[in-house]
Amino acid sequence: MQKRKLRFGMVGGGQGAFIGPVHRMAAELDGHAELVCGAFASDPQRSQSSGQDIYRLPAQRCYPGYEVMFKQEQALPADERMDFVVIVTPNHLHVPVAQAALQAGFHVVCDKPLAMHVDEALQLAELLQASELRFALTHNYTGYPMIREARDLVASGALGAIRRVSCSYLQGWLAQEAADSKQAQWRTDPARAGSAGCFGDIGSHAENLLSFVSGLAIEAVCADLSTFVPGRALDDDGNVLLRLSNGARGTISASQIAVGKENDLTLQLYGERGGLEWRQSDANSLIVRWPDKPYEVRRSGWPGTGERSQAATRIPAGHPEGYIEAFAQIYRDFCLHLHGLPHGEYPSIEAGLRGNRFIEAVVQSSAQDCAWVKLDVN
Amino acid sequence: MQKRKLRFGMVGGGQGAFIGPVHRMAAELDGHAELVCGAFASDPQRSQSSGQDIYRLPAQRCYPGYEVMFKQEQALPADERMDFVVIVTPNHLHVPVAQAALQAGFHVVCDKPLAMHVDEALQLAELLQASELRFALTHNYTGYPMIREARDLVASGALGAIRRVSCSYLQGWLAQEAADSKQAQWRTDPARAGSAGCFGDIGSHAENLLSFVSGLAIEAVCADLSTFVPGRALDDDGNVLLRLSNGARGTISASQIAVGKENDLTLQLYGERGGLEWRQSDANSLIVRWPDKPYEVRRSGWPGTGERSQAATRIPAGHPEGYIEAFAQIYRDFCLHLHGLPHGEYPSIEAGLRGNRFIEAVVQSSAQDCAWVKLDVN
Amino acid sequence: MQKRKLRFGMVGGGQGAFIGPVHRMAAELDGHAELVCGAFASDPQRSQSSGQDIYRLPAQRCYPGYEVMFKQEQALPADERMDFVVIVTPNHLHVPVAQAALQAGFHVVCDKPLAMHVDEALQLAELLQASELRFALTHNYTGYPMIREARDLVASGALGAIRRVSCSYLQGWLAQEAADSKQAQWRTDPARAGSAGCFGDIGSHAENLLSFVSGLAIEAVCADLSTFVPGRALDDDGNVLLRLSNGARGTISASQIAVGKENDLTLQLYGERGGLEWRQSDANSLIVRWPDKPYEVRRSGWPGTGERSQAATRIPAGHPEGYIEAFAQIYRDFCLHLHGLPHGEYPSIEAGLRGNRFIEAVVQSSAQDCAWVKLDVN
Amino acid sequence: MQKRKLRFGMVGGGQGAFIGPVHRMAAELDGHAELVCGAFASDPQRSQSSGQDIYRLPAQRCYPGYEVMFKQEQALPADERMDFVVIVTPNHLHVPVAQAALQAGFHVVCDKPLAMHVDEALQLAELLQASELRFALTHNYTGYPMIREARDLVASGALGAIRRVSCSYLQGWLAQEAADSKQAQWRTDPARAGSAGCFGDIGSHAENLLSFVSGLAIEAVCADLSTFVPGRALDDDGNVLLRLSNGARGTISASQIAVGKENDLTLQLYGERGGLEWRQSDANSLIVRWPDKPYEVRRSGWPGTGERSQAATRIPAGHPEGYIEAFAQIYRDFCLHLHGLPHGEYPSIEAGLRGNRFIEAVVQSSAQDCAWVKLDVN
Repeated sequence: MQKRKLRFGMVGGGQGAFIGPVHRMAAELDGHAELVCGAFASDPQRSQSSGQDIYRLPAQRCYPGYEVMFKQEQALPADERMDFVVIVTPNHLHVPVAQAALQAGFHVVCDKPLAMHVDEALQLAELLQASELRFALTHNYTGYPMIREARDLVASGALGAIRRVSCSYLQGWLAQEAADSKQAQWRTDPARAGSAGCFGDIGSHAENLLSFVSGLAIEAVCADLSTFVPGRALDDDGNVLLRLSNGARGTISASQIAVGKENDLTLQLYGERGGLEWRQSDANSLIVRWPDKPYEVRRSGWPGTGERSQAATRIPAGHPEGYIEAFAQIYRDFCLHLHGLPHGEYPSIEAGLRGNRFIEAVVQSSAQDCAWVKLDVN
Repeated sequence: MQKRKLRFGMVGGGQGAFIGPVHRMAAELDGHAELVCGAFASDPQRSQSSGQDIYRLPAQRCYPGYEVMFKQEQALPADERMDFVVIVTPNHLHVPVAQAALQAGFHVVCDKPLAMHVDEALQLAELLQASELRFALTHNYTGYPMIREARDLVASGALGAIRRVSCSYLQGWLAQEAADSKQAQWRTDPARAGSAGCFGDIGSHAENLLSFVSGLAIEAVCADLSTFVPGRALDDDGNVLLRLSNGARGTISASQIAVGKENDLTLQLYGERGGLEWRQSDANSLIVRWPDKPYEVRRSGWPGTGERSQAATRIPAGHPEGYIEAFAQIYRDFCLHLHGLPHGEYPSIEAGLRGNRFIEAVVQSSAQDCAWVKLDVN
Repeated sequence: MQKRKLRFGMVGGGQGAFIGPVHRMAAELDGHAELVCGAFASDPQRSQSSGQDIYRLPAQRCYPGYEVMFKQEQALPADERMDFVVIVTPNHLHVPVAQAALQAGFHVVCDKPLAMHVDEALQLAELLQASELRFALTHNYTGYPMIREARDLVASGALGAIRRVSCSYLQGWLAQEAADSKQAQWRTDPARAGSAGCFGDIGSHAENLLSFVSGLAIEAVCADLSTFVPGRALDDDGNVLLRLSNGARGTISASQIAVGKENDLTLQLYGERGGLEWRQSDANSLIVRWPDKPYEVRRSGWPGTGERSQAATRIPAGHPEGYIEAFAQIYRDFCLHLHGLPHGEYPSIEAGLRGNRFIEAVVQSSAQDCAWVKLDVN
Repeated sequence: MQKRKLRFGMVGGGQGAFIGPVHRMAAELDGHAELVCGAFASDPQRSQSSGQDIYRLPAQRCYPGYEVMFKQEQALPADERMDFVVIVTPNHLHVPVAQAALQAGFHVVCDKPLAMHVDEALQLAELLQASELRFALTHNYTGYPMIREARDLVASGALGAIRRVSCSYLQGWLAQEAADSKQAQWRTDPARAGSAGCFGDIGSHAENLLSFVSGLAIEAVCADLSTFVPGRALDDDGNVLLRLSNGARGTISASQIAVGKENDLTLQLYGERGGLEWRQSDANSLIVRWPDKPYEVRRSGWPGTGERSQAATRIPAGHPEGYIEAFAQIYRDFCLHLHGLPHGEYPSIEAGLRGNRFIEAVVQSSAQDCAWVKLDVN
């Protein structure tokens, strides 16, 4: 028997934002949740019009700000009130909004990176721990079935101890000054994005993906960040050497000036007895390599894949699932969890904390001309 | 300003069906429509439990049959009543249900193939024409952005007059008798599937895709259908030679016994001055070939693609969109049309009629040992 | 202990020919043979200059014609005389030159198609049978390691009985009248090419590849040939339905007007229990599909491939081998055979005879508006 | 008019070596050179048997050692004497043999890396400069047509100033101790391989390829080398951060423990206005990306590629050329140069010197826990 649809509100995601509608589609795809309210912009007028025009919400649930929203939603009857909030603001508001939400008794789904810096992340983690509420961080790429397959394959030990890992996320959209893009503006502004630009935005995704699949902790980084576009305040490109628990070595690369690249996210891991490769542009395939036989290509939904990756597919093999479906997986697992049902693993606040530690270490290492910087791993 | 969400009911799609939930996800993805009721199974009990368990509908809108549904929905206030019906039954019920829907004043979205035979299709077309209602046939592959790009490229004349076309749709899931699959059962049963098995199911998709992109009419077919699995009543594989308006030649192949194939749908066209290739497994790419320069790969959402393919994407290039998104495109365009807004082209009843003519001609040609059979083209 | 290098002469392959130098490179690659003489053109002057300029041969072994060459080579001491002749003329000269060679006591390597028609091919086959000489037909694609792997995989029975086969060879170089290309001229001239253009040239390669790998005989064809370029006397495109021994069905497609295509040769086979795919553009990979587990990609020279495909590689896996290496494989096996050493299978005169029967049947079927035409199979 | 075939001798390449026969095939492919003698092994007996059995040479030209060979070849008449020597020994012999060859008046083709250390390389460079002889280093990957296309594309300025480069060469063959492989033994022995294992062998190829295509100098490296296989004396894996002239940044990765990888050599460059990608497994394609239009795929031998890449192909587009053909290109250009004819660029002793500087800097940086180490660039 299906549980009731959960109700959620959104903070951010107003006109000009691209990720708000993605969260709406992802959250609603499987029928587990529906958007019922929001504070979509800092400007009350724009919040209203965004809510009505983009999300077809009634005027009374398009709030002028998140504090008002939390207050008024608390006052609603239990069968109307939102269950959780989705935070899709620029980075500097993640923690303030999340804190307010937790204090108001709402579960939280928050976009990445978790916080502006590690201390802020730690404060939020404490607050969460003291509550009985749930928290998900939308490192959405972990929702791809073949990423879950990869994680389980590594965890099974079939590849042996992991020795070499690499993850690369290359885009080209910021190869020039992008003065007229709202997206570009806040992502290159330290006051709203934090201490890292490219590495806060997509380097953190690479870190998360690599950590999720490998199951290893990054113990130290040696990072070389660059800013190629004149006048830009934050990094738009960088390469990082990694030392991981278990003795493994590797690299993370990220760029927003790789001209012509769309969203080229790739992952490779090599253990003592086998290796794997995944690439977002062919997201439904996982290449698994062996030293003594032909390589195999595991495919979303096809026989020979594990239970957990099968659970993350919706349609028969060969009908491609993509970014929205992977994103939806995070929401599905979060909603199942809220209902107390069996669910897959979604990125937690610990993943967010790890991400902020990674970002800080990378920025510090780069500032010290690529000195090794250790990450606090506990 | 957004128009209100449209409301739809579903006929078919109960437990064990795979395509019902796909239609639900596709119809709701862009927020233009929502499922409000249904007659999900011929058994009233199963219709109830399907509606509540799969679709989270209230009991009173899970109807015991489609006639009852149409009647009771007609009686509802205008702001609650469903706007259109989605028909996802086995083939033999498409036309009866569609007729009842049109007579009850509901717009129709119907799965393919349109009808059991051409005469039945013609009757429905007449009824539709006499109404003021709208009809969409879910040849969902035409919703892929790169398929729309391909159609526009051909229509632009840049490839010159088309000479050679081919479309192939290969699956392997019916390579053995599949006695325990509800899907397999009705698709191999002439009473519910019609005169063709593989060609009714996926050969018709290939015909539609080829016709949609090429803009050419298939004038005659020379078809060799096979049934490889012993005891099966309908074809499970076949190859067809084509003669098209304009003098072009080509082939359509379809198989459900191509062991190990998932849903390998491919399309190639060659004109006097250029060619194109598309494959569902890399759905966001369109290869365009030229005699005098490097081939280009057009990508969903990337610069250099046309307005109509851009309109059919939701997310930045490189974040793959897949089968559900393409399917959703049909619904989006249909809903925009119902609202009187500008919309992309979705498959019409004429496409369905063309499909039934193709199926009948293929079956007839094969029965006559591959004699050429002309299609009624008007 | 290595056997001595064999010596060969060439007929054809003079200035303007592309295939002569390919045969030279292929024959010499493995050090088993070397070019020592030739009659490179019908014009004695051009034969001289071709032999000296292209092949660096001494003037006295650049003969004015093949009859003279055979005569004078016969007169040379055994340790200077050529051992075999390579025939790379337009098609109409294959049999006359081969007959003269056999009568003069020389082994023969001949380009495809074997003959202008079946009767001519039969005469040559008789002559050969009466001799003690060896004959190879350069259906060079059978030299690819992964094609040999595919053949052995099918023969092993692992895929079960074959049900569906298809082979397609698409080029675009003759999409327009190509008046200034010597290659194009004779290939579109019935007097030099025979009764088929595209199907004589590359359709015959597709037939050979499909027959080699499947091990099945084509029993009947239903063919639709086209001539798209105005004024051309022979087919430049076509599609063929196949019925094979064992009940399998399939298609062969070939085109020289598929604009923008280079040499896109592809093969697919599906049996009861598995399937395979190969494509020349990724020649070192063989995709093997199974219904119940991930598909595998066998790679030239990598563990998990068979002895015979391993024997057809020269360098470590991942260093791509290509067209010349595959071509060289035919020569290597032929030379090993001449030395009485263990060797792989190279295309025989029987394959040539089968090819001519296929060509004739295809032309006849097309002339009869796609009537089924049976092939003489014995 | 063709020039005469050049004659060459080989040092190294005896039984158990894989690269000797590759050099033989590559050098002879285009008919510009032929192997006439050799000192194939340090053991005179094995040199004899290797020369006769593998290379079919007469006993009198299979020498017991390279000094003897140079001496005796010098004594032969000019029209028999070898023109150049090919050095395919383990690394520690490259310079001694090359010095002896130059002193004896023979041109030199030498395998990479050039020397055991920079000083040795400099000595050889001086000796060469004082002679009138020619020297080629077989960084064979620069012979691929699409690599030459890439270099010319970068040099043309069409991509704008280069910002980001990366080259990766991953193999898995040394993932375990490989005690029984002669190849593995010397490559992991500091006395014969030099100060680096993986980076001497294939990291140096990556450096060369990146430098060749980018036209940029590597100014400093920050390197993290690893040895994963217990007991191994040299690195078997590593990652290097790069700072290049012109302000560009990048990475070089190389591994011999990437289990299941064959010879995965990849290159990416991004400039201000465009980017490019190349991968050995699809060696005949060059992907060129633009910010404002579809990406293009340039193909060996197809229209739209430059004169110099066209000159490096032998056969029509779509018939794949591979590793041996690319290797042969180095020999072809070297031979054309020896004849004083127009020729493409082949890797010079300067490239070798640069390679040794790179290796030394990488080893030094890694020993200093990834401190930046500057390369002497002049």
